[in-house]
Amino acid sequence: LSFAALDSRLVGPLFASEAMAGVFSDEAWLAAMIRTEAALAEAEAGLGLVPPELAPAIAALSPADLDLAALGRETARAGVPVIPFLKALRAKLPAQLEPHLHKGATTQDILDTALVLRLREALALLAADLGPTLDGLARLAERHRRTPCAGRTYGQHAAPVTFGFKAATWALGLAEVSAELPRQRRRCFAVSLGGPVGTLAGLGHAGPAVLERFRADAAPWHVRRTRIAGLGAWLAELMGALAKLATDVAHLASTEVGEVEEPYLPGRGGSSAMPHKRNPVSSTVILSAHMAAKGPMIILFDAMAAAHERPAGAWHAEWHALPTLFGLASGALQEARRLAEGLTIHPDRMRAGLDLTRGLLFADAAAAALAPSLGGREAAHALVEQAAAEVRDRGEDLAAVLRRLVREPAAREALERAFDLEPAVAAAALWTDRALVEVERARAALRDEEGSCP
Amino acid sequence: LSFAALDSRLVGPLFASEAMAGVFSDEAWLAAMIRTEAALAEAEAGLGLVPPELAPAIAALSPADLDLAALGRETARAGVPVIPFLKALRAKLPAQLEPHLHKGATTQDILDTALVLRLREALALLAADLGPTLDGLARLAERHRRTPCAGRTYGQHAAPVTFGFKAATWALGLAEVSAELPRQRRRCFAVSLGGPVGTLAGLGHAGPAVLERFRADAAPWHVRRTRIAGLGAWLAELMGALAKLATDVAHLASTEVGEVEEPYLPGRGGSSAMPHKRNPVSSTVILSAHMAAKGPMIILFDAMAAAHERPAGAWHAEWHALPTLFGLASGALQEARRLAEGLTIHPDRMRAGLDLTRGLLFADAAAAALAPSLGGREAAHALVEQAAAEVRDRGEDLAAVLRRLVREPAAREALERAFDLEPAVAAAALWTDRALVEVERARAALRDEEGSCP
Amino acid sequence: LSFAALDSRLVGPLFASEAMAGVFSDEAWLAAMIRTEAALAEAEAGLGLVPPELAPAIAALSPADLDLAALGRETARAGVPVIPFLKALRAKLPAQLEPHLHKGATTQDILDTALVLRLREALALLAADLGPTLDGLARLAERHRRTPCAGRTYGQHAAPVTFGFKAATWALGLAEVSAELPRQRRRCFAVSLGGPVGTLAGLGHAGPAVLERFRADAAPWHVRRTRIAGLGAWLAELMGALAKLATDVAHLASTEVGEVEEPYLPGRGGSSAMPHKRNPVSSTVILSAHMAAKGPMIILFDAMAAAHERPAGAWHAEWHALPTLFGLASGALQEARRLAEGLTIHPDRMRAGLDLTRGLLFADAAAAALAPSLGGREAAHALVEQAAAEVRDRGEDLAAVLRRLVREPAAREALERAFDLEPAVAAAALWTDRALVEVERARAALRDEEGSCP
Amino acid sequence: LSFAALDSRLVGPLFASEAMAGVFSDEAWLAAMIRTEAALAEAEAGLGLVPPELAPAIAALSPADLDLAALGRETARAGVPVIPFLKALRAKLPAQLEPHLHKGATTQDILDTALVLRLREALALLAADLGPTLDGLARLAERHRRTPCAGRTYGQHAAPVTFGFKAATWALGLAEVSAELPRQRRRCFAVSLGGPVGTLAGLGHAGPAVLERFRADAAPWHVRRTRIAGLGAWLAELMGALAKLATDVAHLASTEVGEVEEPYLPGRGGSSAMPHKRNPVSSTVILSAHMAAKGPMIILFDAMAAAHERPAGAWHAEWHALPTLFGLASGALQEARRLAEGLTIHPDRMRAGLDLTRGLLFADAAAAALAPSLGGREAAHALVEQAAAEVRDRGEDLAAVLRRLVREPAAREALERAFDLEPAVAAAALWTDRALVEVERARAALRDEEGSCP
Repeated sequence: LSFAALDSRLVGPLFASEAMAGVFSDEAWLAAMIRTEAALAEAEAGLGLVPPELAPAIAALSPADLDLAALGRETARAGVPVIPFLKALRAKLPAQLEPHLHKGATTQDILDTALVLRLREALALLAADLGPTLDGLARLAERHRRTPCAGRTYGQHAAPVTFGFKAATWALGLAEVSAELPRQRRRCFAVSLGGPVGTLAGLGHAGPAVLERFRADAAPWHVRRTRIAGLGAWLAELMGALAKLATDVAHLASTEVGEVEEPYLPGRGGSSAMPHKRNPVSSTVILSAHMAAKGPMIILFDAMAAAHERPAGAWHAEWHALPTLFGLASGALQEARRLAEGLTIHPDRMRAGLDLTRGLLFADAAAAALAPSLGGREAAHALVEQAAAEVRDRGEDLAAVLRRLVREPAAREALERAFDLEPAVAAAALWTDRALVEVERARAALRDEEGSCP
Repeated sequence: LSFAALDSRLVGPLFASEAMAGVFSDEAWLAAMIRTEAALAEAEAGLGLVPPELAPAIAALSPADLDLAALGRETARAGVPVIPFLKALRAKLPAQLEPHLHKGATTQDILDTALVLRLREALALLAADLGPTLDGLARLAERHRRTPCAGRTYGQHAAPVTFGFKAATWALGLAEVSAELPRQRRRCFAVSLGGPVGTLAGLGHAGPAVLERFRADAAPWHVRRTRIAGLGAWLAELMGALAKLATDVAHLASTEVGEVEEPYLPGRGGSSAMPHKRNPVSSTVILSAHMAAKGPMIILFDAMAAAHERPAGAWHAEWHALPTLFGLASGALQEARRLAEGLTIHPDRMRAGLDLTRGLLFADAAAAALAPSLGGREAAHALVEQAAAEVRDRGEDLAAVLRRLVREPAAREALERAFDLEPAVAAAALWTDRALVEVERARAALRDEEGSCP
Repeated sequence: LSFAALDSRLVGPLFASEAMAGVFSDEAWLAAMIRTEAALAEAEAGLGLVPPELAPAIAALSPADLDLAALGRETARAGVPVIPFLKALRAKLPAQLEPHLHKGATTQDILDTALVLRLREALALLAADLGPTLDGLARLAERHRRTPCAGRTYGQHAAPVTFGFKAATWALGLAEVSAELPRQRRRCFAVSLGGPVGTLAGLGHAGPAVLERFRADAAPWHVRRTRIAGLGAWLAELMGALAKLATDVAHLASTEVGEVEEPYLPGRGGSSAMPHKRNPVSSTVILSAHMAAKGPMIILFDAMAAAHERPAGAWHAEWHALPTLFGLASGALQEARRLAEGLTIHPDRMRAGLDLTRGLLFADAAAAALAPSLGGREAAHALVEQAAAEVRDRGEDLAAVLRRLVREPAAREALERAFDLEPAVAAAALWTDRALVEVERARAALRDEEGSCP
Repeated sequence: LSFAALDSRLVGPLFASEAMAGVFSDEAWLAAMIRTEAALAEAEAGLGLVPPELAPAIAALSPADLDLAALGRETARAGVPVIPFLKALRAKLPAQLEPHLHKGATTQDILDTALVLRLREALALLAADLGPTLDGLARLAERHRRTPCAGRTYGQHAAPVTFGFKAATWALGLAEVSAELPRQRRRCFAVSLGGPVGTLAGLGHAGPAVLERFRADAAPWHVRRTRIAGLGAWLAELMGALAKLATDVAHLASTEVGEVEEPYLPGRGGSSAMPHKRNPVSSTVILSAHMAAKGPMIILFDAMAAAHERPAGAWHAEWHALPTLFGLASGALQEARRLAEGLTIHPDRMRAGLDLTRGLLFADAAAAALAPSLGGREAAHALVEQAAAEVRDRGEDLAAVLRRLVREPAAREALERAFDLEPAVAAAALWTDRALVEVERARAALRDEEGSCP
C-alpha cells in the first residue's frame, strides 16, 4: 500500500531516511508492543503481582511469530490493534502464564508506550543528523565570514552582507531548534500506564509501585496530549528552520543568481526531457516537507480536546500524524545535511552580483552619510531616491550621479566613504562570529544529549 | 514501511478500504505510468510521429517487469521517479523503438496523467459506496419520519424533532456533496501533456493534434493546480458531511442517551481491559478521518503557488496529500455505509427522552401560545423562563407550573395546545419529506454518473 | 480594537479593500439583521400571521438607533448577539407589534440570513475586480504572445517560452476560479429559516408557505454547512490562483531577473532605511493573503461536524473565519488587478536572459534532434548532458560544443535547427491563443453573472 | 471595520478580554512604536551617536499626536506602516533632531520590537488569568477527590473514577502548559535591531554596544522566526488544554448527563426562541477558540521559510496571525477561569449515573477477579462479555447474572469484592493527590514569574 508518498517503495526513499522508515515499520511497532508488555510484566513480577516467568516468556516472542495480515484484519473489526495482538500473544504463551498478561493495563497504555519507545529512537536519529548539519553550516559560516554578497529584502538587492553571515543565520536558526531537543525528549519519554480509565485501579495499592518501576509520569496522560502536540510543533519548527535554508539555497542556485550550487551527485537533479538540468533536489525535498508538515501538526492540536477518559476519534487521529512528521523530518534533515556538508559556493558570482545595481546597494549608507550636511535624513533620503531613479533610468553609477548632485566638500568626502564595502563586511563578520558562539553552544548540548542517550 | 497509519498492515485496514489501497499501490502507479506512455505512443503513432509498434510494445510491459526497490533507490537520487522509470522501460524495449519513447513529454506529464487515471478509479470507488449510503440514510429518514425524539442545541434538549428529520439532515448533507462528484470528475479527468515547459514545443505543429487524440485540457495544467486543490476540498467536504453523521451517532449511542447503537459486529468495539464495552468504532473512524483530512487539504492549497513552469517543492508536496485524502475518505465512507445500512434505533428510548426535562421541550411553544394573552412575547418569555427555573429547582412539570401561574381562560386553553407533541412531529415529517426529494435527485444523478463511467 | 491586521486602521487598508470592509462592518451587520427581521415579518404578514404594520416598522429602524457598545456587552453575557438585538428592537417598536417580532425564527436564522446578505454583496465586489483583472491579464498575454523569455523549472532555465504564454497561464488559472463564482453564489444565497430546532414548528402548517415567500432552501441548513466550507475553499482557491501570479511576478521583478516591474506608484515599495528600494508590494500583499487564507479555511471544514440541531462551538467558530477570508481576498484581488493593469514588461531583459545559459535552453531540442542519428534518445541525452557540463565548466556555447562533438552530416544539420527559437515561440503562442479563448469564456460568464445580480 | 469576530464591537467582547483588546489596539501599537524609537535613541545617545535630546523628544509624543486614518492610507501605499509613521514623527520633532531619528534601524526592527513589547503585556495578562484558573481547578479536584462518577471511554461508561480525578486531569493539563510560560517569555523578549539587512552596518563598530544597551539577541532575528512560531504553538497548546476541559464540561452539562452546570449568570445561555435554555456559553467560547486557533498557528509556521534578509509575504503574513491567537486565548481563558471558579457540581447525579449500566462499570474488575479461578483471563473476559450481553438484553444486574453463572466458591467470593466501589475511588484519589502536587509546582512557578515581571 502507499497512500503516503513516504511509504511508497517508488518515491518514499526520496522523502524519508531508511533508518527512520525502520523505526516506524509495522515490525518495529509490534516489537515495541511486545517489549512494552514484557516490561510491564517485569515490573509487576518485581512486586509479586505476576509470575516471574511471564516477562521472559513475552520477551522471547518476536514480530515474526505474529501474522501481520491477520492482525490487520482483526484490527479493522475490533477498532484497535491491541485486542488481536493480545489474543495472538496469549496463543503463544504457556497456559499458566496467559491469565497474567497485560495485568492492570489497557490498550492505550500499550500503544502509547510503544509510541514512546519509537520516539526515543526517532529523536536519536534526528539528533545524529542534526549535529553534522550544524557543523557543516558552521564551517560554511566560518569560512565565508568575509565573503561579500548582496543582501536581499523582498527579492531586491538591499545592502551588502557576507555569505558567512547568511550561513550563520541558517545555522543559528537550526541551533535554536536543536536546543529544544533535550526538552522534547524528556517531556515525551514518559511511559503510559493508567489502565481502563487512567486510575490503574486494577493494580490497587500496588499501582504507584508498579509505575515507579515502569518509569512513568506524575499521572496518566491518556487524555493529556500536550506532549504529543508539542512534539509535533517542534518537528514542524525543525522543518521550518530547514525551509529557511532551502528557500535561500534554491534561489541562490537559480540560473540568474548562480551564487551556490547544490552538491553534485551523478544523476541527481536531471530531467526526463532536458539533458542539461541540475535541479536543486535537496531544496525541493526540504521545501515539500515544510509544506507537508503543517497538515499533520494541526491534527495533533485538534486531538488535545480528548473527551473524558478516552475520546472517540481524537486519539486515533494522532496515528495519522506523528509518524508522518518524523518521516518528513528525516528526509528533510538528510538533504539539509547534504547541503551543509557539500554546498558549492561561488564567491566570484557573489562579488559580481554586488555590482548589478551600480552602487544602489550603498544607497542606505550614502543617505546616512549625506544627512548631516544636507540638513536632515529626510532630505538625504529624498536626494538619494532621486539619484537612484537616475541610476535605473540612465544606467549610470550611483556614486557618479551623487557626485554630480552633491557639491559641498564635507558631503562629498562623506559620500566616498559610503561606497566602501569594508564596513558592511566587517559588520557581517562580527555577527557571524557572535552567532557561531551560540551555534557551538547548541552543538555541545546536542553532544551531551547523545552521550546521555540510553 | 508505514509512516502513515493508512499504509500500515497492522492498522491500515481499519482506516481505508482494501479497494482504495489497491488504487494507490505502487504497482498500480507503475501500471498507470506504463499505460500513460503507451497512450502517448499510440496518439503519436496515429500522426506518424513514432513507429506504430511502440505503443503495443510498451503496453505489453507490466509492473512486475520492473524492480521497485531499485527504482526507489534511483528516485531518491534523481529527485523524480520518471527518470529511472524511463531508463528501466528503455532497457525492456527493442533497440529501434527506444529513441521514440516519451516523445515530446516530460516527467510531470507522465505523473500527472497517471494520477488522473488513479483519480478516475478512486472516484468510482467512492461513488459505489456513496449510493448505498444515501439509500440507507434515506430509508432511516423515511421509516422514522414520525418517530419523535429530542432536538438538541448546545448539547441541551431544545424542542422535539423526529429521528427521521435527523436522518434526513444527514442524508441531505451527504447528497449535497455527492451532487458535486460529477463536476469533480469532469474537472479532474484532463490528461496532462505539455512537455518540458508546458508548450509541447518538441512536437512542433503536431502538438495540438496529439493532444486531441490524447484527450487533454485547453492548455497544460502543470502549474494550474486549482483542480487538485478543489478535489482535495471536495474530499474534505465529504468527510465533513460524514462527520456530522458520526458526531450525532457517537452521542446518540453514548451510555446516558442510548437512542441508537452502531450495528453489531461480533468482536467489534471491545476493549482489551473491559469485557462489556461496545465502542462506536464506525463513528471513531469517521471522526478521526475528518480530523485528519484538513492537514492534507491545506497542502494542496499551498501548492497552488507554483513558481513559473514547474516549482521546486510545491508539486512534490501534492504527493504527500492527495492519495492520503482518498484513503481517509474510503475508510470513512465504508464505515458510514455500515451505519446507514445497519444502525439500530431505539424509539422507546427516544420517547422516554422527551420526558427528561418535564415539559421544558415545549417552553418555546408555551411562550408563543401565551404571548397574545400576556401582552407580548417578552412578557411570555419571561414568565416561561421563571416557570422553567421552578421546574429545574422543584422537579415539577412545566405544564403544571404554568397552569398554576396562568389564570386567564384563553391563555390556559392556548397553553394546553402548546404541550401537544403532534405539531412538532408534523413539522419534522414535512421537512423530512422535502429533504428526501432532494436526496433522491442526488441519488439519481449519481446513478447516471456511474452509468456514464468508462 | 484590532486583533486582526485586516481590521487595523494602521495597516488594514494595505490588506483589504475599503468597500469590502464596509460590507463586513458592525453597522452593516446590524443593518442586515434588521433587514432580515423585516423580510420575515413581511413574508409572515402576507400569510396573515403577523400584522402588516410590523415589517415597515422594523424596516424604519437603522443601526444608528442601536447602542453597539451596549449590545456588545450583552452579547458577551448572553452568548449570541441576537438576544440583546431583539431586546433593543422590541424597545423601539410600538407595544402592539412587539409580540409578533421574530415569529417562528431563532437566533441562527437571523445571523445566517444576515450573513447571506453580506455574502451577496461581498461576491459582487469580488466579481467587479475579477473582470478587469482577467481583462488585464488577457491583454498582457495577447500583447506578448510572441515575446520570448526563459521557461523555468525548479528555478532553473529550462527551455524558451513566451511572456504571453506565462500571462495566459495566470489568466487561465484565474478564469478557472472565476468560472465557479456563479455556482458559489447560487449555493450560498439560501435564506436560513428553521426556528429553534430547524423544523419551523412554531409556524405550523404555514411553515412552507412562509419559506416560499422568504426564498429558502429545500430544508433548513443550520447544521448542514457544506455551502460555507465550500465557499471558504473557493476563496482560498482564488487566493491560490493569485498567488501563482504573485510568485512569478515577485521573482521576475527580482534584481537579478528584472524582466518585469510592479506598476510604479509614488512612494510605494520604499524602505524606511534604503532610499533606492522598490519592493514588490502588490506581490507581497497577495502572497501574505495566500499564506493567511488556509487558516480560516480549515476552521470552516472543522465546523461541518456540527452536533445535533446546533453545536456548542462549531457555529461560533465560523464567525472567526468567513469574513476574514473575504477581507484577504479583497486585498489580494485589489493588488492583482493593479498588476494585471499596470505591470511593466522588459522584453529586452527577457531576450537577454535567453542567452544566460549559452544555449542550454535548447538542450532538450538538441537531444531530440540528435537521437535518430545517434542511435537512440538515451545516447543523445547522454551526449548533450556531457556537452552541457562542458558549457558550464568552460563557458563555451552549447551549439559550439556539440558542433565539435558531432561529425555526422545529417546530425549536424538537425542540430542547427535545434537552436532555432521560432518553434518554441510558435508553440507558446499557440497555447496562449487557446488559453485566451477559455479566458474569454469565463469573462463572458462573469459579465452575465454581473448582469443577473440583483 | 470588523473582518474578525474578535474585533467586532457587536460580538468581540464574547470572544476576547477587554484588557487584551487594549494590548493590541492601534493606539497601543503606535505607542509601542514610539517607545521603541525612543529607546533606540536613548541607547544611541549613551554612546554619543545621537543628541541626548532626541530620546525625550520622541518619548514626549503620543499616539494622539498622529492621524491614524492618514497613516493607514499611507501604509496602503508604502507597503509597511513604519515609513509614514517616521514621516509623521519627523514632522513633530525639532528640525535639528530629525536627522538622527531611527539611526541604523529598519522598519522590521521597529515593528518587531513593538511586537515584543505587546507580547510582554499580553503574556502577563494570560499569566494573571492562568493562576486563578489553576487554583480553581485544583480546588475542585481537592474537594471532589473521592466523589465517585462514571469514567467514560469512546462515550461509553467504562469504569468508576472520581470527579476530583477528572478535575485534576484538567488542572494538570493546564499546568503543563503554564509551566512553559516563563520559557516562552524569555525566548520572545528579545528586542529586534539589525538595520536594513540584519548586520547593523549603519552603526559600524558601535553596533554591538548599542545592542547591549538595547537588550537584544545574540544576532538579529529578522528571518529567524522560530520564537514566533513557537509562541503560536504554545498559545494553541493553551487553547487545546482548555478545550479538554470545555469538551468534558459541555458533555457533563448536557441534558442527559447533568452532572455539572456552568456557573449561573443572569441572562447567560438563553435563546432568542426558547425561554428554558441554559446553554453552556463558556464551553462554547472555549471550543470555538480551540477550533479557530489552528488557522493562525500554521501561518506562523509557514512564515518560517523567510527568504534571504526579508521575505516578500511571509513576514506580513505573521501580522494576520499572532495577535489573533492572543485574542482567542484571552477569551478562552476568561471563560475557563469562570468555569474553574464557579462550576456547579451534582454529586447525586454522578452517583446515580454509576448505576445506569447495572454493574457493567465493574466488568473489568469482575473479569480480573474471576480469571484465577476460571483458568485464565481470556476465559474470564469471555464469560463477563456474555454476562454483559444478558445485562443489556434482559435488564438484570451484572452481579446477579454472574452469581448465576459462577458456582465455584472462591470465584464467588472474589466476585463480591469486584463490585466494591472503594478500590476505584481510592485509586482515583491517589492520582488526584499526585497530580495536585505537580499543579502546585506549576502554580508556584507562575507566581515567581509574575513577581519577576517588570
